[in-house]
Amino acid sequence: MPPALAIHGGAGTIPALGLTETEAAAYHAGLRTALRAGWAVLAGGGAALDAVTEAVKALEDDPLFNAGHGAVFTTAETLEMDAAIMRGSDHAAGAVAGICGPRHPVEAARAIMERSGHVLMAGAGAEAFLRGAGLEFMPPEYFATAWRREALRRELARLASGAEDLRSDADRHGTVGAVARDATGTLAAATSTGGYTAKRPGRIGDAPIIGAGTYADNASCAISTTGTGEIFIRFTAAAEIAARIRLAGQSLERAAGDVIAELATHGGDGGLVSLSATGAPVLVFNSAGMYRGFVAEDGALHTAIHREPYRQG
Amino acid sequence: MPPALAIHGGAGTIPALGLTETEAAAYHAGLRTALRAGWAVLAGGGAALDAVTEAVKALEDDPLFNAGHGAVFTTAETLEMDAAIMRGSDHAAGAVAGICGPRHPVEAARAIMERSGHVLMAGAGAEAFLRGAGLEFMPPEYFATAWRREALRRELARLASGAEDLRSDADRHGTVGAVARDATGTLAAATSTGGYTAKRPGRIGDAPIIGAGTYADNASCAISTTGTGEIFIRFTAAAEIAARIRLAGQSLERAAGDVIAELATHGGDGGLVSLSATGAPVLVFNSAGMYRGFVAEDGALHTAIHREPYRQG
Repeated sequence: MPPALAIHGGAGTIPALGLTETEAAAYHAGLRTALRAGWAVLAGGGAALDAVTEAVKALEDDPLFNAGHGAVFTTAETLEMDAAIMRGSDHAAGAVAGICGPRHPVEAARAIMERSGHVLMAGAGAEAFLRGAGLEFMPPEYFATAWRREALRRELARLASGAEDLRSDADRHGTVGAVARDATGTLAAATSTGGYTAKRPGRIGDAPIIGAGTYADNASCAISTTGTGEIFIRFTAAAEIAARIRLAGQSLERAAGDVIAELATHGGDGGLVSLSATGAPVLVFNSAGMYRGFVAEDGALHTAIHREPYRQG
Repeated sequence: MPPALAIHGGAGTIPALGLTETEAAAYHAGLRTALRAGWAVLAGGGAALDAVTEAVKALEDDPLFNAGHGAVFTTAETLEMDAAIMRGSDHAAGAVAGICGPRHPVEAARAIMERSGHVLMAGAGAEAFLRGAGLEFMPPEYFATAWRREALRRELARLASGAEDLRSDADRHGTVGAVARDATGTLAAATSTGGYTAKRPGRIGDAPIIGAGTYADNASCAISTTGTGEIFIRFTAAAEIAARIRLAGQSLERAAGDVIAELATHGGDGGLVSLSATGAPVLVFNSAGMYRGFVAEDGALHTAIHREPYRQG
C-alpha cells in the first residue's frame, strides 16, 4: 500500500493581494519542510503516528504558523497552546490544552496518549506531568514572536475602539495539522495551535477535542481541521464526517465537502485536511484560503494557499 | 407535546450487598429531589435547558454524588470539576473543566455558553471569567467532604502498595447528568463531575466534551454519559449514538445499547441517560449499577440503582 500524507497551516481570509511573492514563497517552503519531515518517516516504512508527529513538529518550529514557536497571544498576553494526536487502528488518542512549556505541543499530546492513562490534560497539571515525562521545555520567550505581539496590540486596540474586525483569519484562528496513512493501512491525525489572537485565557478550541478538530479511524478517515473552533466543536465536525462515511456510505470527498459547507451556514469558517481509508487526500475549506499541502503517490510535494493550482516541488 | 426528563448520578460496580437500605434510600431521595427540580421547570412550561440546569444543580448540591459539593479529589488533594450543557435546537453548548470555585459547575458551563463566545474554558482563566460573570463562588472547603478525602487516602495507599483495585466504581468515575425535552420539542443535556478519585491534576474527562459525554440534537437525541471517560472520548460515544439514529435510521434504544456494549469491549464501563427526539427515555449501562431516574408521562418519579425494578414515588 502506498503511504499518504497531507498537512495544513491554517485557513482563513488570507489576503491574496497583501501576500507578496516573497511571503508566499516562505509559506510554501514551510509547508514543504513539514511534508518532507512526515514523508521521510513514511518512505522509511515508519508509522503514520510518527509521520504526523514529525510533520506537525516542523510546523510548530516555523514561526510563520500559529503553533509552538510563533503561537498567538491571549488577551492577557500569555501563550496557551492546544494539541491532539490520534491513531486510527485502535482510536488511541492524546490531547493537551492551555499549556506553555513543551517545545512541541504535539509531542505533549502524544506523551499524554502513551504515558498518562488519560486522553486530555490541561494547564499546570498537564505541564507538571509533561515535565516529569522528560519532554523538552522552552521558556515563554521561545514561543513569543514580535509580530504576534503586535497582532495582539492591534486586536486589543480594535476591541477597545469597537471597530470592525478586518483581520486576516490566519491571525484569528490559525492552526497546523497533519494526516497520514502508512504501509500497514493505519491512519493518524494530529493538530496543534495557539488558538486565536486575543482569545480569553482558559479558552480551549477544537484542536484538542477528539471528534471535533482531530480524528482518525482506519474504517473511515483521518482528519485535522482549522477554523472557527467553537462551531467545529458544537457540530462534532470530524466525527460527523467519519460517521457519514461509515453509516451513510458517503465518500470522504462528499462528506467533508458537505460538512464544511454546513458549518459555514452556522458561522463556522475554515477547512480541513483528510485522508480516506485508502489514503486519498481531500483538502477542503470554505474560507478564502488555507495553507496546505500533500504528497502525491510519486512522492511529489504539492502546496497551495488560495484556490490557485498547487505548486509542485 | 408532553415533556420528558431523565437523570443519572453515576455508574459503576456499586456494591449491592454493601449498600444498606438506609444508604439506598438516601440515593433514591437524592435522585427524586433532582427529578422534582427539573420537572418543576418543565411542568411550568419552562425550557429543557433550564430543566437540566436545575436537575444537575440539585445533584451538585447533594454530597452523595460526585459533582459540586461532594466532588472527588485529585492525587494532589485538590478538587477539579468539569461540566457541560447543550441545547438541541441550535447546538448551543458550553463547558468548563478543571475549576474549583463556582458552587454549581453546570451554571458555569451555561455562563460560558451564553456569555463567553467560547464553548470550552478551563482552569484559572475559566474561573476568572466566571467570577467576572457574577457566578456564586464557594471556598474549596465547601466542595470537600470527609468521605471523599478518606477515599483519596485509601486509593493513594493502594497505588503505593500495588494492590488490586477493588473500589466501587461509583468512587472511581461518578458523574451526574440530566436530559430533558420541553413542550416545544427542544432537547437539552447537561453533565457535571469531579472526575475520579486520584485522577492526575489537569486531567479532563468526557463530561465537558461535546459529543463524548454530553450531546443534544433535536433531530436525534439528548445524552449524558457516565463511566470510563477516556474510552467515551476516544469513541465519541454520544455523537456516535446520535449519528446512528440520523444516518442509519436506528432507534435510540438500539444505538445506545449497541454503543454501550461496544465501549465495554474497549474497556469502557459506565452508562448513559438519553431521550429520543419524541422524548422516550432510554437509560442503559454495562456496569453493575447506575444511579438513575426518569419521570413518566403521568409525572410519576422512577428511580433505581441496580437492575431491580424502579421504585416509584
